[in-house]
Amino acid sequence: MAGGGEGLRVDGGRLWQRLMRLAEIGATCKGGVDRQALSDGEHEAWRLLIGWAEDAGMRPSTDAAANLFLALPGSTPELPPILIGSHIDSQPTGGKFDGAFGVLAALEAATAISEGGIQPPRDIIVVAWMNEEGSRFAPGMMGSEAFAGVRSLEVIRSARDQAGISVGEEIDRIHAAFPGLERRPLGFKPFAYIEPHIEQDIVLERENKVIGVVTGIQGKKTFEIRISGEKGHAGTVAMTERKDAVLAFARIAAALESEIGRADPDVKFTIGRVEVHPNAPSVIPEQVTFRVDLRHPDNEALDRFGDTVRNLPASHAAPCRSMVTELVSAPSNSFDPSLQERIAAAARRRGYPAIPLLSCAGHDARHMAPLCPSAMIFIPCRGGISHAENEWAEPAHVTAGGQVLVDVVLDLLSCPDDLIRRGSWNL
Amino acid sequence: MAGGGEGLRVDGGRLWQRLMRLAEIGATCKGGVDRQALSDGEHEAWRLLIGWAEDAGMRPSTDAAANLFLALPGSTPELPPILIGSHIDSQPTGGKFDGAFGVLAALEAATAISEGGIQPPRDIIVVAWMNEEGSRFAPGMMGSEAFAGVRSLEVIRSARDQAGISVGEEIDRIHAAFPGLERRPLGFKPFAYIEPHIEQDIVLERENKVIGVVTGIQGKKTFEIRISGEKGHAGTVAMTERKDAVLAFARIAAALESEIGRADPDVKFTIGRVEVHPNAPSVIPEQVTFRVDLRHPDNEALDRFGDTVRNLPASHAAPCRSMVTELVSAPSNSFDPSLQERIAAAARRRGYPAIPLLSCAGHDARHMAPLCPSAMIFIPCRGGISHAENEWAEPAHVTAGGQVLVDVVLDLLSCPDDLIRRGSWNL
Repeated sequence: MAGGGEGLRVDGGRLWQRLMRLAEIGATCKGGVDRQALSDGEHEAWRLLIGWAEDAGMRPSTDAAANLFLALPGSTPELPPILIGSHIDSQPTGGKFDGAFGVLAALEAATAISEGGIQPPRDIIVVAWMNEEGSRFAPGMMGSEAFAGVRSLEVIRSARDQAGISVGEEIDRIHAAFPGLERRPLGFKPFAYIEPHIEQDIVLERENKVIGVVTGIQGKKTFEIRISGEKGHAGTVAMTERKDAVLAFARIAAALESEIGRADPDVKFTIGRVEVHPNAPSVIPEQVTFRVDLRHPDNEALDRFGDTVRNLPASHAAPCRSMVTELVSAPSNSFDPSLQERIAAAARRRGYPAIPLLSCAGHDARHMAPLCPSAMIFIPCRGGISHAENEWAEPAHVTAGGQVLVDVVLDLLSCPDDLIRRGSWNL
Repeated sequence: MAGGGEGLRVDGGRLWQRLMRLAEIGATCKGGVDRQALSDGEHEAWRLLIGWAEDAGMRPSTDAAANLFLALPGSTPELPPILIGSHIDSQPTGGKFDGAFGVLAALEAATAISEGGIQPPRDIIVVAWMNEEGSRFAPGMMGSEAFAGVRSLEVIRSARDQAGISVGEEIDRIHAAFPGLERRPLGFKPFAYIEPHIEQDIVLERENKVIGVVTGIQGKKTFEIRISGEKGHAGTVAMTERKDAVLAFARIAAALESEIGRADPDVKFTIGRVEVHPNAPSVIPEQVTFRVDLRHPDNEALDRFGDTVRNLPASHAAPCRSMVTELVSAPSNSFDPSLQERIAAAARRRGYPAIPLLSCAGHDARHMAPLCPSAMIFIPCRGGISHAENEWAEPAHVTAGGQVLVDVVLDLLSCPDDLIRRGSWNL
């Protein structure tokens, strides 16, 4: 391997220990993690990461979207940096690995390079994107969307959580909590972006593989649907006089399940959040607001099912009214073929069984792909279980993911400048 | 009219002013009231009621269930008292009249008797029952159930609100806030119980009547149903591998609607509260807990539909599991015929158009009926709208309800002792 990193090894023990240490922040009693975006827990996690990064000679910074950057300085700072990482926010009942593995594997890669005495020609920057999960503030991937210019910072700042607190207030709060932190301008063009992540599916486990070379991310649409009815006393209003928003919701959800959820083996259809108002046992519900999460690897099918979500509610809501708002529409995308080859080659050299696969879950890498050559490295997670407190990854797989990442980074560092300038950097 | 109260008139203006004054406690911006059971608002309401009662020479007291009693002393305190009143707790988005009208009409009746210089032979006690609504602590009617021995105080004290606060803690808190208040033993046998209330239905308005002579209360059953599935990532788990609790809820609710809600013109079927866990947009929901409120005037039909609620979920929940718990089972009941006649006669003498009708809503009077001769006086509420912020009753109807109540109380006061002793006190 070129670049002076021949045989450079990540410290798998340290990477595992840091995963367990980070999981203490927001730990739930069932072994999971509740560390939602911009919460006090994320403040604590930033402090921890910054401390570890500074020990390795890295420089922390942030931007207007409260993304956290940890830069290992290169010899020629003008060169576009290599960006590696993921996110550290979690679902309310999330696990120890989703997001955290990617950030800590990236930190481990940069630390190993630093400790290996290698001076990279360009900066290597570890990133922890703001609010990937979208559970506290919906929809997710706010940090990478703001960075990539997919959504305006103003719109992102105006989103509010269920307590009425805005993203903007919470960005200002985390910035105020870290007053010494250097501020980068929002968005820059990296040389490449690589995101390690647990698979969140059972393909690697079933096929007995250690590394997933991610070919792309399946398309996703999310919708908010509001059903408006009329409040009333549960004991007095005749059934025929009612406008019951919960019963309308039930009809709509059951119809969407049979029209979409059972129509196609590749579709994923989820109603994850439902809010009922006033939600009192003997009051006819006046309003139901719910979210639809729709995914499909084929963009044409995604559009077709999206149309069903948009049109079906009106015909099942009567006598209530329904309103459908599309929040996110992200078609399937493909990752950089050269980076995919480099990941596969690194896995091969290290003897890790690898296969190409499509990511069914969305990731920040989706928004980086149009900006610069991007890729993802997957490792298995037990039973495919994720967004759950019993999410688990094997220590050996965690080490393998970190090792492949550092190998690919070193490979990219050795890429001759003229090849890059000509845009012909393929293997 | 006997008893020295010939022509005694309630002060309709004062009664209306007090309704409006009480509605300021917990007032919502849409003109309604949020004054849930044992809240700070209820403390404030107690203070207000006690002040008004003491001004009229009445004595406040409470019992172990935090029911509030305001007694106008009679000349022979050993005689069983006449109990009149209702409740002052509200739904989270309730109105100004539900409950409050009954308590303030009773206070007005006692005040008018006191100011009229009439010394009643027996105590006249105004009651405000604890937690009729059941919105903060479910199920409702806790105060009258404890008083009548329908449910044990221990079980009632252990119920908790969504913040985890128990009824017991809140009973102790309101008692501590009123340290000087005399404490009655829990439960006593009244001479009679009369509860004035808004109709919460459109029969009086439609028939252009002012007074409803309530014949009984329709039967009610409430259930809690828990659906248990499996959490997972919305983007990765195949539809056929899922145990999605929200989709199971939708199938169950839609099936209950068509099996029960559309089966019978007299049935009332409501799912008022739905809780989804973890309720995050991209997590397959693991658990849904919901309440069913089922009512029917015919006890046989009520039982039959109750069986459907008990049995249907299991057959529609798969691959999730369901568990049904019956929380309340209150059959239809009939009120005392003699009291109904006395209410009708009082309305006739005052020239108020009156009709007999069945209460579709539940009331504390349901639990008093087995204990002593009980009855209810209904007045119209606009459009039948109740449990809603735009609930409204006309001032003239409020006065009429209070007037009929005081007339019936005076009528009962004049009832010869020997008739009562022989149990033959019918008109």
